[in-house]
Amino acid sequence: MSHSATQWRDQLETLRANKVFETVVIGIIIVSALLIGAKTYEESSRFEQIIYWLDWGVTLFFLIEIIIRLAAEKNLLHFFKKGWNIFDFLIVTASLIPIDDSEMVLLARLLRVFRVLRLVSMIPELRILLSALVKSLPRMAYVALLMFIMFYIYGAVGSFLFHDVDEKLWGNIAVSMLTLFQVATFESWATAVLYPTMEHYPYSWIYFLTFIFLNAFIFLNMMIGIVLDVMQKESTQYEIETGQGEAAEIHWMRENMEILRAQMDRIESKMDNKP
Amino acid sequence: MSHSATQWRDQLETLRANKVFETVVIGIIIVSALLIGAKTYEESSRFEQIIYWLDWGVTLFFLIEIIIRLAAEKNLLHFFKKGWNIFDFLIVTASLIPIDDSEMVLLARLLRVFRVLRLVSMIPELRILLSALVKSLPRMAYVALLMFIMFYIYGAVGSFLFHDVDEKLWGNIAVSMLTLFQVATFESWATAVLYPTMEHYPYSWIYFLTFIFLNAFIFLNMMIGIVLDVMQKESTQYEIETGQGEAAEIHWMRENMEILRAQMDRIESKMDNKP
Amino acid sequence: MSHSATQWRDQLETLRANKVFETVVIGIIIVSALLIGAKTYEESSRFEQIIYWLDWGVTLFFLIEIIIRLAAEKNLLHFFKKGWNIFDFLIVTASLIPIDDSEMVLLARLLRVFRVLRLVSMIPELRILLSALVKSLPRMAYVALLMFIMFYIYGAVGSFLFHDVDEKLWGNIAVSMLTLFQVATFESWATAVLYPTMEHYPYSWIYFLTFIFLNAFIFLNMMIGIVLDVMQKESTQYEIETGQGEAAEIHWMRENMEILRAQMDRIESKMDNKP
Amino acid sequence: MSHSATQWRDQLETLRANKVFETVVIGIIIVSALLIGAKTYEESSRFEQIIYWLDWGVTLFFLIEIIIRLAAEKNLLHFFKKGWNIFDFLIVTASLIPIDDSEMVLLARLLRVFRVLRLVSMIPELRILLSALVKSLPRMAYVALLMFIMFYIYGAVGSFLFHDVDEKLWGNIAVSMLTLFQVATFESWATAVLYPTMEHYPYSWIYFLTFIFLNAFIFLNMMIGIVLDVMQKESTQYEIETGQGEAAEIHWMRENMEILRAQMDRIESKMDNKP
Repeated sequence: MSHSATQWRDQLETLRANKVFETVVIGIIIVSALLIGAKTYEESSRFEQIIYWLDWGVTLFFLIEIIIRLAAEKNLLHFFKKGWNIFDFLIVTASLIPIDDSEMVLLARLLRVFRVLRLVSMIPELRILLSALVKSLPRMAYVALLMFIMFYIYGAVGSFLFHDVDEKLWGNIAVSMLTLFQVATFESWATAVLYPTMEHYPYSWIYFLTFIFLNAFIFLNMMIGIVLDVMQKESTQYEIETGQGEAAEIHWMRENMEILRAQMDRIESKMDNKP
Repeated sequence: MSHSATQWRDQLETLRANKVFETVVIGIIIVSALLIGAKTYEESSRFEQIIYWLDWGVTLFFLIEIIIRLAAEKNLLHFFKKGWNIFDFLIVTASLIPIDDSEMVLLARLLRVFRVLRLVSMIPELRILLSALVKSLPRMAYVALLMFIMFYIYGAVGSFLFHDVDEKLWGNIAVSMLTLFQVATFESWATAVLYPTMEHYPYSWIYFLTFIFLNAFIFLNMMIGIVLDVMQKESTQYEIETGQGEAAEIHWMRENMEILRAQMDRIESKMDNKP
Repeated sequence: MSHSATQWRDQLETLRANKVFETVVIGIIIVSALLIGAKTYEESSRFEQIIYWLDWGVTLFFLIEIIIRLAAEKNLLHFFKKGWNIFDFLIVTASLIPIDDSEMVLLARLLRVFRVLRLVSMIPELRILLSALVKSLPRMAYVALLMFIMFYIYGAVGSFLFHDVDEKLWGNIAVSMLTLFQVATFESWATAVLYPTMEHYPYSWIYFLTFIFLNAFIFLNMMIGIVLDVMQKESTQYEIETGQGEAAEIHWMRENMEILRAQMDRIESKMDNKP
Repeated sequence: MSHSATQWRDQLETLRANKVFETVVIGIIIVSALLIGAKTYEESSRFEQIIYWLDWGVTLFFLIEIIIRLAAEKNLLHFFKKGWNIFDFLIVTASLIPIDDSEMVLLARLLRVFRVLRLVSMIPELRILLSALVKSLPRMAYVALLMFIMFYIYGAVGSFLFHDVDEKLWGNIAVSMLTLFQVATFESWATAVLYPTMEHYPYSWIYFLTFIFLNAFIFLNMMIGIVLDVMQKESTQYEIETGQGEAAEIHWMRENMEILRAQMDRIESKMDNKP
C-alpha cells in the first residue's frame, strides 16, 4: 500500500469518527425521513420537483458516506464482519435500485422508507436496545413456535366445530387462526365471536376460555421470562465489568478468597515445618 | 433373553436416537398437521382420496414408530415412566380409534388434530418450555381458584342487583360470570355493560371499578410472581450446575469458607498446644 | 376452671384441628356457594322450600362452628387477635342478621354471598396468597393516589376543553374521569372518544396520547415494582428461614465471617504476646 | 444580617417544618382541587360567588406559603436548587397570572388545575414514586424514540399501500400513525381496520401481525427491562444504606474480607520474620 493511500485512509477514518460528520449523517437521515412522510400527502405535488432533487441528494449522500466508510476500512471484508455495517449497506443499496417504471414506483418508495432505520445504527443507545432485542430472538422464536402450534390446533378444532356458524370467521384453518388472533387481542371477541357461536353451541365458551387462558398464560410467562433472563445476564456482566454492584462484589470476594485459601495453606505448612 | 433379541433391541435404540429418524418423524408430523389443515378447506374434496391414504399412512407410521420405541425399551414399564412417552402414546392411540361412523367423523378428526402436539415432544427446546409451564401449574391452580371465588361472588352480587337491567347479561350466576369475564378482558365493557347498567343504577360504576381493579391487581400480581419464582429457582439451579454466575460463586465461597474455618480451628489449636 | 371444662375445651380444640372437620366445613361452604348460585336462577322456585331449609342449615352450622372455635379458645380475646378469625366472625354474623322484610331480602342475600370468602380462610395456600396481597396494599394505595391525581387533573382539563363536544362524555369532572377510565382500558377509546373529539379539536390527540402513555407507564411501572419488591423480600426471608438458596448461603457466610474475624484477632494477639 | 431578621427566619423555618402547617397546606390543596372539580358542573353557578372568593383565598394562601418558604431560606438561590421547589414555584406563579379576559378564562382555569400536583410535592411517599419515574425517563426516551421510528416506518408503508382503501385511516403518514396507535391498543383493530383492508389486499394481515408482534414485543421488553433495572439499583442502594438484606450483607463481607486479607498479610510476614 502506498504512503499517500494510507494517509488518505487515516483521514477518512478520522472523518468517519468525527462528531460533526455523525451529526450531519443523522440530520440527513431525518431529512430523508421527512421526505418520505411528505410524499404521503396529496398536496405534496407542489413541491414534487424539490422533493425529487432532495431525494436524489440524500441517496447520493448515503452512497458517498458508505463508500467513505468502505474505503476507510483497511480490508473490505472487515467491513462486512460487523452486523451494523451489513445493515447500513443493505439499506443504502436497496434505495439505489433504479426503478423508474411507474408501476414499480411503490416498491422504490418502500425501499427508501427503510433509510429511517439507519437512525438506529447511528445512535449508540438505540444500537444497545436493538442488540438486546436480537439476543432474545432465538428463545423468542421457540415461544412463537409453541404459540403457533397452539393456534394451529385451536384453529383446526374451531374450523371443524364452528364451520357452519360463520363461514367468515371459521371457514377454514387460516381464517380460524386469524379469528383466534383477534380473540387473543380481546378485540370484539365476546360480542362478535363468542356470543354468536354460543347461540348454536352453548358450550363453546369452554373452547374460548381455555384458549384465552392458555394464550395469556403462555405469552406472559414466556415474555417476562425471556426479558428477565436476558436482562439479568447483561446486568451481571455489566456489574462485573465496571466493578460495581452486587455481582462485582461477589466476584471480587471469590477471587480474594482463593488468595486467602492459598495463604492459609502456606501458613499452616509453615507452622507444621517449624519445630 | 436370546442374543439376537438383544442385538435387535440395540439396533432399534440406535434407530430411535438417530438424527435422520428424528427429522423424518418431525417431517411426518408436519405433513400430518398440513393434512388436518387441508381438511378444513371445502375444495379439498378433489384431493380427498389422496388425503385419505396419506392420513392412513401417517397413522400407520406413528403406530410403527411408537412400537419401535416400545420394543427398544428393555422393560415395557420403563417406557411409561417418562411423562413424554405417555403423552406420545395417548396421542397415537387416540388417532387409532376406528371411527368410520359418519356422525362420529368429527370426533375422529379432533383426535387427530392433537398429533400436532407431538412436535412439542420431539423438539427439546419446546419440551423445556412446556416443562417450565407444567412446573408452575400447581401454584397457578390456586390463583385460578382465588380468581374463581372472586368471579363467583361478583357474579352472584351482579345477578342479584342487575337482574332486571338485562336478562342476557345478568340473568343468572353463570351468565353473570361470563359477562364479568368479558369485563375483565375490557371488551365493550363500558359501552355495552357499564353504561346501560348505570342508566338504572347510577352507582353501579363502584361495582365495576372495584371488580376491574381487584381482577387486574390479583391477576398481574400472581402471574408475575409465579413466573419470577419459577424462573429464579431454575436460573439459580442452572448457575450452580454449570458453575457460572453469581449463585455458583456464592456456592463456591460457602464451601471454601467451611474449609477455611476448619483450617483456622486447626491452626489455633496448634498454636495453643505449642509451648 | 373446673376439670371437666378444661377437658371439654381440649376436645373442642382437637375437633377444630381435625382434618375431617375441616373437610366438612369446606364442603358446607361449597354447598352454601351453590345455594347462592341456585338462587340466581328463575326456575329455582320449584326447589324454593328445599333451598330455604338448606340455607338455614348452613347458617346454623356456621354459627355452631364459630361457637366451637370461640369456646375452644382459652381466652375470648385471643380469638379476635387473629385477622382470619375476625374475618370469619364478621362473615358468619353478617349472614345471621334476621331480615325477613321482603324489601330487604336483597341485602340479606348479598350478605350471605360473602360466605364463599370463608373458603379463603379455610385453605392455607389461599391464605398465603391473600396475605401477600394485603402486604402490598399500603404501597399500592399510594400508587392509586398518584393515579387518582392524574385522573383528576386530566378529568378537569378534559371537562373544561371538551365540554361542548359531548355532554355525556365530558359533562363534568366525574363523567370525564369515567370516560378517561374507559380510555385507560382501551375500550372503544379511538372510535367512540378520540375521533369524535378530533372532529372539533384536531389537536386533541395530544391530550389522549399523553394520558395513555402516562397511565400505562405509571401503572406498569408501579405494579411490577410493587409485586417484585414484595416477592423478593418474601423469597429472601423464606430462603433464610429454610436455610436454602442464595440468601441463606450469604447469611451463613456473614455469620461465619464474624467468627473468623474474631478468631483471627485472637491468633494475631497470641502471636504478638509470644516472645 | 440583623439579629431580629435571623430570629424571624428561624421561626419561619420552624413553621415550614411544622406538621400542622403541612396538614393545613394539604387541606388547602384538596379544597383547591374540589373547587376546580366544582367548576366543571353547570349548576355550580349558584355558588359562583363563594367559589370565586374561595379560589382567590387559595391563590393568596399559596402565594403566602411560597413567600414564607422563600424567606425561610437563607439564600434565595438555595431555594431554586431543589427540583421540588421549582415545581411548586411554577405551579403557584402560573395560577397568579391575571387573566380576567373572558376569552382567556379557560387558560386561567387550566393553569389552576395543576395546583393539584402540589399534593405530590407535599406527600413524601408520592415524591419517592415520582422520583423513581423521573429517573427512568432518560432510558424511556430512547425506547420511545425506537417505537417512534417503528411507527414512522409502518406509517409510511401503510400510507403508501392502503392509501386507496380508506382515506380516513391511511390518508397520510400522520393519520396512518394514529391508526397504527389504535391498532397497537387493539381497539377495533380487526373489525374496523384489518378486515376492511383485507378485502382489497388479502395479504395485509402480514403487515398488521408483524406490527402487533414487534410493538408488543419491543414495548413489553423495554418497559419491564427499565422498571426492573431502576428498581434493582434502588433496592440495592436502600439495602446498603439501611444495612439490611442481601446486598448489605455482601457489602459488609467485602469490607471485612479486605480487613481479613490485610490481617493475614501481617500474620504471614510476622511468621517469616520470626526465626
